[in-house]
Parts: sequence; C-alpha cells; structure tokens
Amino acid sequence: MSHEFQIDWQRLQRTHVPEVVLAEHKSAEQLLTVATLCVERQQSLFMTRVSADKATALESKLPGMIHFHQLSGTLLVAREPLVSPVDEASSEATEPAGSNVVVHRAMRVAIVAGGTSDMPVVAEIEQTLLYLGEPATRYVDVGVAGLWRLLELTEKLSGHSIIIAVAGMEGALFSVLAGLVRAPVIAVPVSVGYGVGQGGHVALNSALSSCAPGIAVVNIDNGFGAAALAIKMLAVSET
Amino acid sequence: MSHEFQIDWQRLQRTHVPEVVLAEHKSAEQLLTVATLCVERQQSLFMTRVSADKATALESKLPGMIHFHQLSGTLLVAREPLVSPVDEASSEATEPAGSNVVVHRAMRVAIVAGGTSDMPVVAEIEQTLLYLGEPATRYVDVGVAGLWRLLELTEKLSGHSIIIAVAGMEGALFSVLAGLVRAPVIAVPVSVGYGVGQGGHVALNSALSSCAPGIAVVNIDNGFGAAALAIKMLAVSET
Amino acid sequence: MSHEFQIDWQRLQRTHVPEVVLAEHKSAEQLLTVATLCVERQQSLFMTRVSADKATALESKLPGMIHFHQLSGTLLVAREPLVSPVDEASSEATEPAGSNVVVHRAMRVAIVAGGTSDMPVVAEIEQTLLYLGEPATRYVDVGVAGLWRLLELTEKLSGHSIIIAVAGMEGALFSVLAGLVRAPVIAVPVSVGYGVGQGGHVALNSALSSCAPGIAVVNIDNGFGAAALAIKMLAVSET
Amino acid sequence: MSHEFQIDWQRLQRTHVPEVVLAEHKSAEQLLTVATLCVERQQSLFMTRVSADKATALESKLPGMIHFHQLSGTLLVAREPLVSPVDEASSEATEPAGSNVVVHRAMRVAIVAGGTSDMPVVAEIEQTLLYLGEPATRYVDVGVAGLWRLLELTEKLSGHSIIIAVAGMEGALFSVLAGLVRAPVIAVPVSVGYGVGQGGHVALNSALSSCAPGIAVVNIDNGFGAAALAIKMLAVSET
Amino acid sequence: MSHEFQIDWQRLQRTHVPEVVLAEHKSAEQLLTVATLCVERQQSLFMTRVSADKATALESKLPGMIHFHQLSGTLLVAREPLVSPVDEASSEATEPAGSNVVVHRAMRVAIVAGGTSDMPVVAEIEQTLLYLGEPATRYVDVGVAGLWRLLELTEKLSGHSIIIAVAGMEGALFSVLAGLVRAPVIAVPVSVGYGVGQGGHVALNSALSSCAPGIAVVNIDNGFGAAALAIKMLAVSET
Amino acid sequence: MSHEFQIDWQRLQRTHVPEVVLAEHKSAEQLLTVATLCVERQQSLFMTRVSADKATALESKLPGMIHFHQLSGTLLVAREPLVSPVDEASSEATEPAGSNVVVHRAMRVAIVAGGTSDMPVVAEIEQTLLYLGEPATRYVDVGVAGLWRLLELTEKLSGHSIIIAVAGMEGALFSVLAGLVRAPVIAVPVSVGYGVGQGGHVALNSALSSCAPGIAVVNIDNGFGAAALAIKMLAVSET
Amino acid sequence: MSHEFQIDWQRLQRTHVPEVVLAEHKSAEQLLTVATLCVERQQSLFMTRVSADKATALESKLPGMIHFHQLSGTLLVAREPLVSPVDEASSEATEPAGSNVVVHRAMRVAIVAGGTSDMPVVAEIEQTLLYLGEPATRYVDVGVAGLWRLLELTEKLSGHSIIIAVAGMEGALFSVLAGLVRAPVIAVPVSVGYGVGQGGHVALNSALSSCAPGIAVVNIDNGFGAAALAIKMLAVSET
Amino acid sequence: MSHEFQIDWQRLQRTHVPEVVLAEHKSAEQLLTVATLCVERQQSLFMTRVSADKATALESKLPGMIHFHQLSGTLLVAREPLVSPVDEASSEATEPAGSNVVVHRAMRVAIVAGGTSDMPVVAEIEQTLLYLGEPATRYVDVGVAGLWRLLELTEKLSGHSIIIAVAGMEGALFSVLAGLVRAPVIAVPVSVGYGVGQGGHVALNSALSSCAPGIAVVNIDNGFGAAALAIKMLAVSET
Repeated sequence: MSHEFQIDWQRLQRTHVPEVVLAEHKSAEQLLTVATLCVERQQSLFMTRVSADKATALESKLPGMIHFHQLSGTLLVAREPLVSPVDEASSEATEPAGSNVVVHRAMRVAIVAGGTSDMPVVAEIEQTLLYLGEPATRYVDVGVAGLWRLLELTEKLSGHSIIIAVAGMEGALFSVLAGLVRAPVIAVPVSVGYGVGQGGHVALNSALSSCAPGIAVVNIDNGFGAAALAIKMLAVSET
Repeated sequence: MSHEFQIDWQRLQRTHVPEVVLAEHKSAEQLLTVATLCVERQQSLFMTRVSADKATALESKLPGMIHFHQLSGTLLVAREPLVSPVDEASSEATEPAGSNVVVHRAMRVAIVAGGTSDMPVVAEIEQTLLYLGEPATRYVDVGVAGLWRLLELTEKLSGHSIIIAVAGMEGALFSVLAGLVRAPVIAVPVSVGYGVGQGGHVALNSALSSCAPGIAVVNIDNGFGAAALAIKMLAVSET
Repeated sequence: MSHEFQIDWQRLQRTHVPEVVLAEHKSAEQLLTVATLCVERQQSLFMTRVSADKATALESKLPGMIHFHQLSGTLLVAREPLVSPVDEASSEATEPAGSNVVVHRAMRVAIVAGGTSDMPVVAEIEQTLLYLGEPATRYVDVGVAGLWRLLELTEKLSGHSIIIAVAGMEGALFSVLAGLVRAPVIAVPVSVGYGVGQGGHVALNSALSSCAPGIAVVNIDNGFGAAALAIKMLAVSET
Repeated sequence: MSHEFQIDWQRLQRTHVPEVVLAEHKSAEQLLTVATLCVERQQSLFMTRVSADKATALESKLPGMIHFHQLSGTLLVAREPLVSPVDEASSEATEPAGSNVVVHRAMRVAIVAGGTSDMPVVAEIEQTLLYLGEPATRYVDVGVAGLWRLLELTEKLSGHSIIIAVAGMEGALFSVLAGLVRAPVIAVPVSVGYGVGQGGHVALNSALSSCAPGIAVVNIDNGFGAAALAIKMLAVSET
Repeated sequence: MSHEFQIDWQRLQRTHVPEVVLAEHKSAEQLLTVATLCVERQQSLFMTRVSADKATALESKLPGMIHFHQLSGTLLVAREPLVSPVDEASSEATEPAGSNVVVHRAMRVAIVAGGTSDMPVVAEIEQTLLYLGEPATRYVDVGVAGLWRLLELTEKLSGHSIIIAVAGMEGALFSVLAGLVRAPVIAVPVSVGYGVGQGGHVALNSALSSCAPGIAVVNIDNGFGAAALAIKMLAVSET
Repeated sequence: MSHEFQIDWQRLQRTHVPEVVLAEHKSAEQLLTVATLCVERQQSLFMTRVSADKATALESKLPGMIHFHQLSGTLLVAREPLVSPVDEASSEATEPAGSNVVVHRAMRVAIVAGGTSDMPVVAEIEQTLLYLGEPATRYVDVGVAGLWRLLELTEKLSGHSIIIAVAGMEGALFSVLAGLVRAPVIAVPVSVGYGVGQGGHVALNSALSSCAPGIAVVNIDNGFGAAALAIKMLAVSET
Repeated sequence: MSHEFQIDWQRLQRTHVPEVVLAEHKSAEQLLTVATLCVERQQSLFMTRVSADKATALESKLPGMIHFHQLSGTLLVAREPLVSPVDEASSEATEPAGSNVVVHRAMRVAIVAGGTSDMPVVAEIEQTLLYLGEPATRYVDVGVAGLWRLLELTEKLSGHSIIIAVAGMEGALFSVLAGLVRAPVIAVPVSVGYGVGQGGHVALNSALSSCAPGIAVVNIDNGFGAAALAIKMLAVSET
Repeated sequence: MSHEFQIDWQRLQRTHVPEVVLAEHKSAEQLLTVATLCVERQQSLFMTRVSADKATALESKLPGMIHFHQLSGTLLVAREPLVSPVDEASSEATEPAGSNVVVHRAMRVAIVAGGTSDMPVVAEIEQTLLYLGEPATRYVDVGVAGLWRLLELTEKLSGHSIIIAVAGMEGALFSVLAGLVRAPVIAVPVSVGYGVGQGGHVALNSALSSCAPGIAVVNIDNGFGAAALAIKMLAVSET
C-alpha cells in the first residue's frame, strides 16, 4: 500500500495554493507515508481535519516534525511550527481585557464569526492563512441576534480587504455583513445547529440565497477552502 | 357531489378564528356550493388562494355577494366588502409621498416585508386581519441587504404589539427583527427565490433555525395562518 | 481563546428574553470561560443542551454555583437553584396518585405532551419557563391514539392562556389541540420516531401543514424557543 | 408501435384484482390500441388517471364503449357503464338534505375524507370499488380541525369492515381514525397542500409514522391501490 | 417524574390491538415505572425496540416478570413467557434439516423475508404476532436475485391468508410477491442497505410505488405495525 | 451568438461514441447553427430530446436534411434517414400478430421494458443504437406484476449479449432480470410514476441498491447514455 | 400599492455594487412603478430575470428608456443602451470565423462555459459586467467531455485576473479549471440537466465539494451574483 | 435461527457471478452459520463489508479456513487465500520506487482512483476481482485537481479493456476519464467528503449526470458491484 501517494508539488506554482492533505478519510498509516515522504524531500506539508489520535501516531514516528493544532484539527509537517504575530506580541497590549476581538494591525483579511461554537472552523481558517503567509484579524461572537455588536464593528471592518464570515444556525450573518461592507465576503457555513439546522445546510443555503449580492460561498465547515480563496483573491491585485 | 360540505360554524367560538375556505385545490363548482350555502344562511365566508378564474365564476352566479381581492387572492362572500381604515382616509395625509410605509395609527399588528416580491402574501395577511377585525400597519421593502431601512424603523416598530415578518430568499429578516424588538415575531417564509431558494424552504428553515429566540413560524406563504395566530395572541391579553 | 465571548447583556431589555447559552457545540472550556465571567459580574446565566460531562466539569471549577438539571440538559449558573412551586408543595396533595397531570394552580402556560418519550423536551420547556419566572402546568402521555385522554382535558386546558404542545412521531397532536382550544398553540416537534419519522421532521412538517389555523411552530426539540415565545406572547397583554 | 401491449388476463384469478391501465404516461394512441384489443376480445377494461382529452379521443374511435368519469379520471371500456346503488335510489330518501354523508346501507367499506379538496381521490376509490363489485359509503369533510364531526361518526363507522381514510395537508386524520375504530384503516395521502405540504409527502409520512398501530399505507393519490387493497382484505374472510 | 404514564387500557377493546410500549426513546427508569404499574395491576405489557441494557435493568428490579427476546428487541412483562408452537414441537420433524423454512401447520400468516439481514425485523413480527395470539410461518432468504427460491414457494404461500413481506435494499420482493399471490401483502421495508439504500427509504418507496396493486405499506422496520395490521385484517372476517 | 459551438469531431475516434447534441436546453436558433455547420461539412449529426416545434423549425430551414423521430424525440441531420432492419422486412412474418415482441434475428442487444409508458425512452435507445450501427430487439410490457411474461422470455433473452432494461415506478424489473441472465444488464430508470415515484428517482435508487450484482445504471430517462454504454461494452470484445 | 418601493441608492457607495431589481417575482405594474421612479430621478436602473412580456409592458409605458436583452433576460432603464466593445469592433477581425471564442483584448474577466445550453446565464453575466463597467471575454462550449478544448485555452486563460466558470450537468468544469489556473474561479452552476441533474443541484454540489481549493460558489443560475462578486474581487486590488 | 440460509449455488452458472455474502447487517453468529455450511460442502465463500470483530470471531471457530483482508473488509472462506500476481513478483521490479502505479502486465481491468482516501473501496474491487479470477492494475491519487497526473496516464489506460473509476468528493474524475478513453468506464462513487459531499451522493450524482456518455454507474462504495459488472462485461466478448 506504500506507493499510492502522488503529491502535486507544482500546485502552488500553478494555482497559488499548495497541495494540502485532507486527513479525515485517510488512515494514520497513510498519513505517515506521505508525511515521511515530505520529511525526506525536506518539504513542509499541511494537513486539515486531523484527529488527535492520528496526530499522536504521527508525532511518535516523526518526533519534532509534527506540529498539531488541536482546536482547528490542522497539522504541519515541518522543522518549525507556525508562528502567529499575535502569539509574539501580547494582544492584551493593543486591546482591553475581555475583548472578543484579536487585532493584528495591518492585516488584510478579517474573520468574523457569529458565535463561539464556530471556533474550530475559525481556527482552521486562521491556521491555513498563517501557513499561506497571510495572518488575519479575528472578530468572534458577533451574531445578528445582538446586532449592535456587528454595527459597532462596521468601521473597523472597512479597513480589511477581504471578510471571511463564519456562521452556523440560520446564517443571517452573511447577508447582513455583505450589505454593510465593500470588501468581498467569503461565507463559510458551519455545521452548528439542530433540528432543521443540523449539518449546516440551512446556513449554506442562506449564503447561496442571500439578497445581498457578491457573496462567495464555500462548502460547509470548509475553513481551508475559504482561506485558499482569500489568498487567490489577494493575488488578483498582484497580477 | 352536492352534499360534501360540512362547515364548522362553531369554530369561531371554539378557537377565536372562524372556518375559512382554502380554495386552491377545490373546483369552482365546489366553491359555488359552499358559497351558496352561506348566502342562504346569511353568513359571511372568507376564502384564500382563489384564482381570478374561480372568482369570476362565483361572481357570475352570486352577483353582488362576491368581493374578490386580486393581489392577495382572497375573496369574501358577504353583502358588503371589507373596508380598510386606510382606504377611508388618504394615507398621503399622514405620510410624505413616495413612502413605503402605510401607517394606520394605533394599529396593534405590524407587517414587515423584505421586498415587493412578497406583496401577495403581505396582502393575504392584511385582508385576513381586516376580515378578523384587526387592521394592520405595513412596512415593505426593508430587507437586510440595506440594513439602514430596518434600523430607521426600530422605534416605530416598538409601538406595535405583534410583528408579522414576511420574507423569501434567505429570510435573514426574521433573525434581525427578532433581535431588535420586544414584540413576538411571526415569521412567514415566502416562496420567492430561485436555485436553492426556490419554493421558500430556505427562508422557512432560516426562521426555524434562528439564533434569535421567540420566533413563531408558520408554513411557507401562509399569510392566513399568520393573521390567525396574531388574532389568537392578541386574545391572550383579553382572557 | 479566552476573549471570544461577548455576552449580549441588553437582550432582556431589548427583547423580553435574556441571552441564553446553547452549550451543544461549545467545549467545556468555552462554557467555563463564560460561566466564570458571569460569576465575576454576579450575573446569573442559563444554558441549554448541556451534557452531563460538561456539567460535571463546570461544577468542579465553580462549586456551589452550578445547578444542573439532568433530564432537561439545562444548567443554571447562579447562587441559588431554580425552585418550582410544585417542588415546594406536594403535588400528591392536589391530585390523586398515579395521575399524569402535575397541576400548578393559576398557571398561565400549559405543556401538553403526546408521550413520555417527549419528557426531555418537556423538561427543557419547564426549566426555561421557571428561569423566566413563569412556572407551567404539565399534561403528559395524552397522544391522539387514545383520544379520550385529550378530550377529558379539554375543559382544564381552557383555563390556560397559552398551550405548548410537544409531540414526535406524526405530530397529529398539534392539529387536534389547535382545533379544540382558544389559546394559541405553540408546537414543539420532537425528534422521537424512526424510519421516515426519524429526526422529528415529520412532526415538524405536520405542525407547519396543519389544517387547524393559528399554530406557532418552533424548531425540532427547541423547548427553549417555545418557552421564550410563550413569555413574549404573555407580554403582549402587558404592553 | 402496435404490438407493444401484453395484457395480464390471468391477474384477477392470480391476485383477486384484474389488470387496470394507468393512463397517465400513455399516449391516446396507446390507450386506443389496448382498448380496441379488449373490445375485440369482448373483455371490459378499467383505466385510471385518464385526462379529459384522452377520454374524448377514445370516445370518438370507440363510440358507446367508453364510459368516462370526469371527477375521478377513471374510464371503463365496456358495453355498460358502472351503476352505483346510490345512483339508483335517491340518497335524499335516507339522509336529510345538506348532509355530507352518502350512505349505502350494508356497505362493507367506508371512505372517510378530511376535506372536499380530496374529492378526486375519493371518487377514484369509489369508481374502482364499483368496478370491483364493492360499492362503498362516503363521509367527506370531517377533518380533525373540527373534531366533533368525526366523533359524531364514530358509531356509524363501527358498522363498516374496512375504513379508507383520505387526507392531504398534515394527515392527522389517519392517526385519529385508527385510534377510534376496530376496522383496519387504509391511509391514502393526497397531494393537497402547499409549502412543506406540497405534493402530499407530509400526509404520507404522517400515515407511516402514526402512533396508532395497524394503518395500511398506500402511495400518494393512489385511490386505485387503496380500493384494490380493500378488496384483498375482504377476500381474507372468504378463503 | 413518576406520574407521567397514562396507559390506554381500553385500546384492545376499541381497536383490536392493545397498547404496546415503544421503548426506544424512553429511559430505563421510565420503562420501570410503567412495568411496575402493570405488575401491580396484574396486567401483561409488551414492549418493542428494547435494548439489552434496558432489559437487564428491568430484570434486576422485577425478577421473574421480564421476558426479553434479544434478536427482536421485544420484551414481555408477565408471569409467563410467550411460547411458540414451534418451540414446543421440533420443527425438524416436519421439515428436512438445513431448510430455511419454519412451518407451523395451519398458520394464517406467513412472513417472507429477502435475506438473513432482515431477521431482527422478522423476529419482531413473530414475537408480536405470538403476543397477539397469532403464530406465523417464516420463509427467509428468498430474495429476488435468486428468483427460483421464491417461485418454489408459490404454492405453499397460497395456503396463507396474509403475507407479510420483509425486505431491505431495493425491495423488489414486494412487487414480485404481490404479483404472485391472492392474499394481501403487507410490506415491511427494512433499514438494510448502504449508499442510496441506507436507512431503508429505497425499499419503502419501492413498496409505495409498486406496479402490483394492493400492497399495504408500513414504516421502515415497523415489524410491530405489520403484525398489528395483520391482526386487524384477520378480524375483518370475524365481524 | 453565432460562434459559440465547438464540435468535438474526434470524439468517435477517442471514445467509440461520436458527439451527440442534447437539444433540450438549446434554442431552435442554436440548433440551426450547429446543424448548418454539419451540413456544410457534409457530416451527419444526431440530436436527442428535440421537441416537435424545434424539429419543424429545423426542417423549414434545412429541407431534406432533417429526419425527426417523434416518439423518441431524436433527430438526424443527414442526407438519408436511419433505416431499421425491422422496417425493411415485415415483423409480422416472424412473429404472430398481437405480440409485444419485435424480433430482429441475430441482434446482440435486447431492450426489455416494464410497460408501454416507457416507450419514449425505449425508442430513444433504439434510434441511438440504429445511428451507432447496432439495431436491437425490443421486448415491451413485461413488468414483474405479471412475472410469467418475463419468465417466458428467459430463454430468448439468453441469446443476447447485452440487456438494456427500462422501467419506471419501483424498478423491480432490474433486479429480477439481473438475477436471471448472464449478460450485463444496463438499467435505465424512467420518470414514470406518481407520488413518491414521481420523477423516476425510486426506479433509479432501486437499480443502484439492487441485491443482484452487476447492474450498470445510467441517469433517469437517459436512453442515449444506455445505448452509448452498450456500444462501448460490445467494443470490449473487439479490442 | 404605489408606495411599496424603497430603493437603496447608497448601496453602490456602501458595497461596490448598486441595487439591481430581481424582476422574476414582481408584477409588470410593480416594475413600472420602480422604473418610473428612476426615470423621474434621472437614475439608471438594471433588472434581471425579466420576461419578454414584462419588458414589452415597460417599453409601452416608458418609450425609449427601456433596453431589453432577450437572451439574458436583463433590462436597463436609461437613456442609452449598454454598448459592448465587441459590438463596436467586429470580432471576426480578431478571430477566425467559426470560432467559439469572443476575445476582448485586455479584459480582466473571462467567462468559460461548458456548453451552449448555458448561454442565457453567460449572457446575464456579460450584461451585468457591462453595466458595472467591466466587459469580459467569453469562451463557450469547452466542456470536459472534450478536454482538449479546455487544455488549448489554458495559456489564454492565464491572461485573465478572474475566471467565471459556468456549467450545468455534473459541473466537472469547475474542478478541472480550478486545478489549471492561478486566478480565482467563480463557479456558476446552471439549471441544465435532467434526471438527478434537474434544477442544477448536482452542478452546485460539485462546485461546493470540489477537490480543487479556492472556488467561490454562487447560487444556481445566479449570473448577476457572479458578476457582482467579480467586481468586488477586482476592487480588492484598488483599495 | 440455524435454518435461515438458503445459498443460491447456481448463481454463478446463471449470471457469471457467484453468490457473495454482504456481511454488514448480519451478526457474527449468522456469518458463522453460513461459513460452516460452506466448509462442510467444501465450497468457498466470499464476504464483503466484514468488520474486524466479526472476522476474528469467524477465525476462532473455523481456524485456517478464514482469510480476512482488513483494508477492503473482504473475507474468503476457503482452504487457500487469494494470491495476487503482484504479491508473487515484486512490483518494484517493473516500476520505479515511489510510484503510485502498481502494474500487472496484460491486465484487462484498470482501477483508477482520485485519492488515497478511496483505498478501502479500491481494495474491495481488487479483492473481488482476484476472487473472480481477474487481477487488475491500480492507479491511485490521480484526481483532477492535478490534471497532469491523469493526462500522463492516458496512453497506459488505453491498453486496458475496462476502466473502473473510483472517486469521492465531487466525482469530476468520472467525466474527465470517460472523455479520454475508448474502454467503458464503471464509476464507483465513494462516501468520502463532508458538508454537501457527505455520504458520496454528490459523486454519485455527478457520475449519473455526466456530460460524457457511456458511464456505467454503481451504488456508493459498491466495489463488489463494480467488479461483478466488469466480469460480466468481459464475458460479453466470450459469448
């Protein structure tokens, strides 16, 4: 079973985004095979939807090369971990305590999330963007049921080039945001909800049916795809 | 086929709402039978989802007793038509020209609609409320893509006891409204939309999945049901 | 991850219902953060859909402040637990033994449930209403397959201002009840059933399609939403 | 195209129900071919879901042999039309005028329908039963929103061996009926409804999910199938 | 929580089928309450969809009164267990070894199943019929992929008054059977299958859409309902 | 709008099947453009799902070059029409009158259809196979409700290399056929049915879930695809 | 009914895209009201999904001000029609006859469509982009069944900043394109297809599930939304 | 329970494919019964979808006769295990190290898979083909996001008679492959994906809706069915 991987090394050059491994349906053994291949070639590799068990299995075989981020389920195979600007300087220095806003000055991408239940997807976006060299600002728990929270942010949001909106339940955040800002809004529906909202399909369909034009929709829980799309959008200005 | 009707005359006493005929799946002949029965008993009867063709057929057989309202598709069998307070006094007197707001002072129920495409359902609600003795105020074209329109109304809306929200597409209006007002919000999803929004199911599911608590949801395009529910809610305070 | 919460303290004033935390998709760590915040501010906080594991984790960190109600999955962060009137006086004193009816004299809200499988949702409604200051009367196991049980209750039900109907399977209870009483009926579909009934969608769609007008529908298993809606309906009479 | 029919003449002997032609998806030309075949063999043939246009086309080619029943969409190819007992004797003689009940004394099968919108399916059942030699009693417009109408019938219904229940919308009639009578209930969901109820799937799923045991369900609008099943049930007692 | 049960003791008299407890969504504590109630009243009680854990919990509290049948998940609360005729006399005496047919001479009901994966549902039907006093004959593993198995049974099947057909996957068994026999066929779709067949919906829809008339369909995996329906059909001949 | 077509002339060489135009969603003007292009290049072109209106429009502009087959909705742009072997010799010579079987001796492909409602799809398969140089034998109206019709054919069917099975409703024909013959079975679900069977999805899912292995499934009503697949299968033996 | 419109004039400034009227669910009378309003204010207005009938009605009332584009169903209310660069210069001059490629040199946006059936949506994108001041290049009939057509375009496509991909059926075009180019791909699923592909949901879900990262998905047939998103993406580089 | 199996020993002769046991919904006890039956008759038996637990249970009772293949979940009951040609000779001898291609020279069937997540289904196909006497060549990780991988294989693929394509997510591989090769393509959708792609339905529907003609589709994850179909296709050439 050892010859089954064929990594698309040219993908970064061809499409602005390198090949990333979706680990969810792969066995720990398969992940180890491809990780070892990268270590041997001295190439870094990024994985998404990695369970804690699989991460542990990888760490035991490739000590020091595996950097797992539990909340997001992302994993980096590399000599060095990802370092966020906000991990270097204390965010408390720039924002009052208790704030739900983690600001990185001069960030081009903002992540806006309806509630704390969306944090795993928010984290996948953040980690992917970090891996792709584009740290972002995060605004969490600004759902439309308390609209003032979002309205207060309007001016701040106008300073970002791209807004990634993350919401489950009914996904009303997507329409409200897209009606307020000039930046393109990338909608990431989240599988948070129950009853008819279970699985995130309501949030997805709300994003697709929005009466506010110009929303770019990605699959449910697809934080990686949203980050990749943001990178491609930013590159438009550089071509 | 003439003996098939059995009207529930006691329903008004039993449930606060009289029997109303859903005409959509009934033939003109069936509607004529029941309308004649009411005329003979000198009882009024209200019908919903009546096509223009069926209305014409009824008018030719029961001249003077049929009052059809085309936009809403409602029809009253009675000696006198429904009269709206706003039809008696000019609305231009109380509101500047070009306004999208038709105000009836002291109305307890407000109807708030996302767009003009929702007008047939808005009209069904208005006509049913009129028939039930409860004229309402209407605010149309205040969808969330231009949020300022709704925010400007917040104070006015606080003067109403019950808000009936009408929206198709993604139905974000329901959540935004319910987060802004104290009155109970009755959500009427409308079958306006295309693609995944076709048929109104996205708006319906958004209302049901809303992160704003306390929304009362009715079936898609069910303007009659929303009006009936409003009447029952208002009656709570009178018991 | 500690700055991600932004509680909507003004929601009670703005909408008649305070912010309540939906715990299902949040981690124990996230719940602890927000609970601690409330303890520090000497504010109470109510949570729904809390698992026993998460409740235990909270209790170990905030001893004496966590009041978990297992059947309903609700949890109160406060100095004192909720006290039901029926817990104070013996219900046996007012009703013969073996009865399925727990009567609180003078209660405005009645909860009517088809079967004992619906008890977790019934309990979520009861606990939420208690938290919101509105204890209710409960009638359980009165499904339509044995219609006499419901018919016997008709007179008793007429003494309540609002009926919250709770049913899974085919949800025929909603239509039958709404045809019998003057009070508005809030329908809470329950995810009890199998085959085509699995997940509660049949009960939900029955409530929405009911031929009995004036039913207010909430999401499947949404006991909290039903309670919040009841509170808002009762407040109509006080404005 | 003329050799494509192969009628299953033995089906009556083999299964208690003769082959019946479902005309909906067949062309007028195809129907004429098979009707001519039967006329030549001096065999009668029954068709369902025949449009008025196709019936007219058949009548013009086989004058005197085509007996079309418009409301039900059924058509008999035979020398003589079907004659209902109720067409022979006046029903007014046995029931007061204005009644919704058409009684045939000593009928074994009763058809109970929620509303007059269900009449086309009721008529398909009646005509099929007539063709199969089993005239039935009809009770229409006894939906559960006015429950007293059904309760008043309980004793009368106990005199029938089999109950065919016909309902659209939420189909609560099926459960209520099955909880009241000893006879097996055959549930025929009808494609009457709108929004989530459109197409009859809610009524179908309600019948399948019913908490009242022993309901025999057939496809939406399948009046013919219900009649055939009733015939087979009655034959159980004769074997 | 102890007063929530209200057993419908009159259901047997009213509908030919006694109240049976669907245990799936009830807690062991709830089941114990109702079982104790029956023991105290010296009434037997039958439960379906009981897990092994819940059965063990009941047995520990009501020793000697609990008779659990693991394969079917049914449980009888009574002094004596159910005894099948086939358990008394050896079936080997009447059939050659290795046969898949368990014959009870003179049985009125036959159960025909497509494959051995359907055995849990077959067993629920058998146990329920035994409880209702109507032991049945079982024919298993006669799916249509090896049609000769079914054709060989045709004559034997003609000796039964009612056929209960049990099948998952595509459910072709229902149509083939109904085209071969005079007895009414009760179709029980089974949640056996994968991909598009997962959950049993394909088998259900095949039964409902069958081109063979006169099939009585029940919910997926609803062995109890099929048995109850068979009892009601047999009673038709006795009225 | 005239430059939008880019015909894949090499497709026949590359894949064994030439490019065929799906006319359903194209305008008459678009079809004329591509037909004219082919006439100019002296290439034949085959179209499927052509309406009579569009065919008439083409015939008026390209007289003598358009050969429309109404039942199948196929259209050939060429100097000569397709000629079926059965059109040349009288089929009556080889089969008794009244037969539903049209035999072409030595044909490799057989088309077996459940009912005459399936004829438009059967005809699309026949015409496409003719165009591709592979005339077929047709067996119609052999649905499983009268199983003897199919069993009588078993030996004849064994003489064909490939069986294309065509069925709507519940699609039981696919499983029964695949259990009887050695040839691969191509299942073509047909959008014939109503209620849950509407649109052909039940037949499709039955084919996919079949317990008989080795069925090749194509899209609903996709007669063209089935014919193309048969051609590719036959070519396997020639490589 | 005349006061129901409230145009969001500030939307262009706020979000980079002006308010556009979705005409599909609005009456001709409603469209006339809003068009007249714009004419009076000397503002242009763009409408989508306008039927030919409604366009004719508008033209008769506002002669000279209505510019209807039939293929796309778009309509401009203004003194002057939209003028495409390609309408000014002959496209034949820059491309050989018979080409499916309409090149506008130096265009930033490319529209790539799988087949000619997608032309109405392609045209809606083109017209909207023209209205928004961003004419585009069109490549049609390059579906993946003839992959060489797309591969030949790869270099040309690399000269565009943004690719709008338009496809119905299975929507494989989205993934193939996104794997070949650096520009962000906006996927517009089209309601072209039949059977399981009917309505465009398969193409939509393919776009959302694509294994090629960075695809921005919009609703089925939402050409306007794709154009608006492209405009917002291009504006990123200008902020 | 021991008499419930009735193996269809003649299926191989009748249909080219022997009876194979689908173990998923059968108990270990049931599997042991049928395995013992085969051991006693000295017949081999093949099972699919066997869990590791059930395999272990079988091995403990029938030591030496049970050959379990974990990745594919297949199990052979026989004296000897299956031996792949590639297990006998080293594949490294014919292909450079690190290759994802396992070539068996002169193999008639090729298996082409989009990604390594598809390996369990690929393995089920390989093992089934081995059991049926037809070892195959495997090409894995050639998804369309890196199209060059597939294009490089085009010539090699032309050497195979049948291509089995295996893909989850959006299933674009099916269309691309079918447009490139002459051999018939059997599409096996895989339940790999999340959000709208969860469960494999998107890949299935893409295969069915493909614009490339001549794809033979089987159920999601149905590796066994694909192998059986390949065998039947190959047999066409031998008849």
